[in-house]
Amino acid sequence: MQCLPLFVEPPSNMPFTYERTIRFSDTDAAGVVYFANILSICHEAYEASLAAAGINVGQFFCYPKIAIPITHSTADFMQPMFCGDLVKVHVTPKEIKDSEYEVAFEMFGVSVSGGEVKEVTEFLTARAFTKHVCIDTAARSRTFIPADVMRWLQQWGGTGATRDMDLLL
Amino acid sequence: MQCLPLFVEPPSNMPFTYERTIRFSDTDAAGVVYFANILSICHEAYEASLAAAGINVGQFFCYPKIAIPITHSTADFMQPMFCGDLVKVHVTPKEIKDSEYEVAFEMFGVSVSGGEVKEVTEFLTARAFTKHVCIDTAARSRTFIPADVMRWLQQWGGTGATRDMDLLL
Amino acid sequence: MQCLPLFVEPPSNMPFTYERTIRFSDTDAAGVVYFANILSICHEAYEASLAAAGINVGQFFCYPKIAIPITHSTADFMQPMFCGDLVKVHVTPKEIKDSEYEVAFEMFGVSVSGGEVKEVTEFLTARAFTKHVCIDTAARSRTFIPADVMRWLQQWGGTGATRDMDLLL
Amino acid sequence: MQCLPLFVEPPSNMPFTYERTIRFSDTDAAGVVYFANILSICHEAYEASLAAAGINVGQFFCYPKIAIPITHSTADFMQPMFCGDLVKVHVTPKEIKDSEYEVAFEMFGVSVSGGEVKEVTEFLTARAFTKHVCIDTAARSRTFIPADVMRWLQQWGGTGATRDMDLLL
Repeated sequence: MQCLPLFVEPPSNMPFTYERTIRFSDTDAAGVVYFANILSICHEAYEASLAAAGINVGQFFCYPKIAIPITHSTADFMQPMFCGDLVKVHVTPKEIKDSEYEVAFEMFGVSVSGGEVKEVTEFLTARAFTKHVCIDTAARSRTFIPADVMRWLQQWGGTGATRDMDLLL
Repeated sequence: MQCLPLFVEPPSNMPFTYERTIRFSDTDAAGVVYFANILSICHEAYEASLAAAGINVGQFFCYPKIAIPITHSTADFMQPMFCGDLVKVHVTPKEIKDSEYEVAFEMFGVSVSGGEVKEVTEFLTARAFTKHVCIDTAARSRTFIPADVMRWLQQWGGTGATRDMDLLL
Repeated sequence: MQCLPLFVEPPSNMPFTYERTIRFSDTDAAGVVYFANILSICHEAYEASLAAAGINVGQFFCYPKIAIPITHSTADFMQPMFCGDLVKVHVTPKEIKDSEYEVAFEMFGVSVSGGEVKEVTEFLTARAFTKHVCIDTAARSRTFIPADVMRWLQQWGGTGATRDMDLLL
Repeated sequence: MQCLPLFVEPPSNMPFTYERTIRFSDTDAAGVVYFANILSICHEAYEASLAAAGINVGQFFCYPKIAIPITHSTADFMQPMFCGDLVKVHVTPKEIKDSEYEVAFEMFGVSVSGGEVKEVTEFLTARAFTKHVCIDTAARSRTFIPADVMRWLQQWGGTGATRDMDLLL
């Protein structure tokens, strides 16, 4: 992996998209996805976005030199999701400080209707944010965002507009 | 259960406390409790506080006339928690509107040290808030907080101070 | 959906295959997939095989006229699985009685090595069986396997060889 | 911890008992405890039985010198369990070889009825077995059951009768 020259791949402002079918184990006795599992599904999407940027997810999460734990999360739950539903999660990471980034998640349900001509509609079911801080595990202190994570931020990162949206929540 | 006259049982300002041992299934490959499971443990504490106020938890959550889904959550993760750790969760509910309440959770780790004379210290590991909206499931519209939930709010409810703390987050 | 004439689509003896990346939430503090989550992943594969046979998974699991609960499960855990690993699950259902079927699951890890020429090897990580009994939920008694489930059994069902393998466990 | 002389504490044949309230997160959209979560609850009971024998559960499970993974599990699901239900899990471990043990779990629902005089009835909801093999993590080979685990086996261990029951399954 090399540093990508800007003219080859400019920040696309296209978020990473993760598709997932809601499974029976995601649901609770109210018949819908259990609220904390929605954050788990967002984390799955985060993992998939890291892998899609060439990051080895196993090494990233499990006893790395630089650990990047979640220090804060928020979530808004708009619509219930049901077993068998297809959902799409848009993942938009954003650098906040040189040791800190946040990830915005927007989860959409996908509904298909109609006969001969199918009509596909997407509707927002949940929105979440997670904040992540880079920690040097040996020194137990904050450290810079690693180079491969910086590339991931550039690859899937949003513009200021995304951050503004966050502030409106 | 009758409505409690205020002079008999004034709001105690004592939060409900739930004790829980961290289990292996709560943890992830980083060796600590998985972030979304911290919200699950808070929800367990919420369930226990409802049961302690005489509410039938099975009926409360599963296809009731008035559903009270979580519409928003926030969480701050201060300290990692490990398999075998004892944690205490303080649960402080608070009415926001006549159809809406929030619940504040403070999770403490409990550490015991010393020889003959034990020293017990508690330290804040996580803090979370959940917002809940009462929905008439037949009419599919907002409705009033039910009477038994009002009693639970009075029994474990916090003062304005708690809400101020929330605003500072 | 109509009953498939045998000459158009004979029993293929090809099991249904489900692909899945191991996620961080699947793991525990020993750094590998938590044992009970392996059964959850098998159930996901079962759900995917049902959906691939045209069955509406949401209706199938949630308060149906005929409930088909799992009454028995066995599992053998051969190899640990790690966050980021790709796994394939082969799903082979088999009718046992007119009210009962079992599903065999074989989970394989996929390992890719080599430079110019990639070498892909698959290795068995776990094997599981689940037994399912059809219950008429109104009458609370055993009932026949429904027609759409019979078609699923025909579509992905194994031969006697699979059952023999089961007996050797 | 010293080795307990046999005349002080003979094998009690009393299983360890773990009490647990079924939580909302244990359930699925069929309104009952998700099948794989029943195995998780059994594992919680196993952890509690280890802790009650003086074993540090955190060290036991997380990167120990001797790892004791589960290599096999079976489970029978007799009765559904619902959110809010109280369950008791009896834990009966048994040595099989010098490097191997199994644990039998019996899960009972507890039902309370009646007015002035309460009547408490317990009914079997699930039964499970797990097999565990001791592995020297450095040498990557089978090794003897460690001394503290042998004491746990003696403290909560069953008689041959339990093993016979297993064979009948």
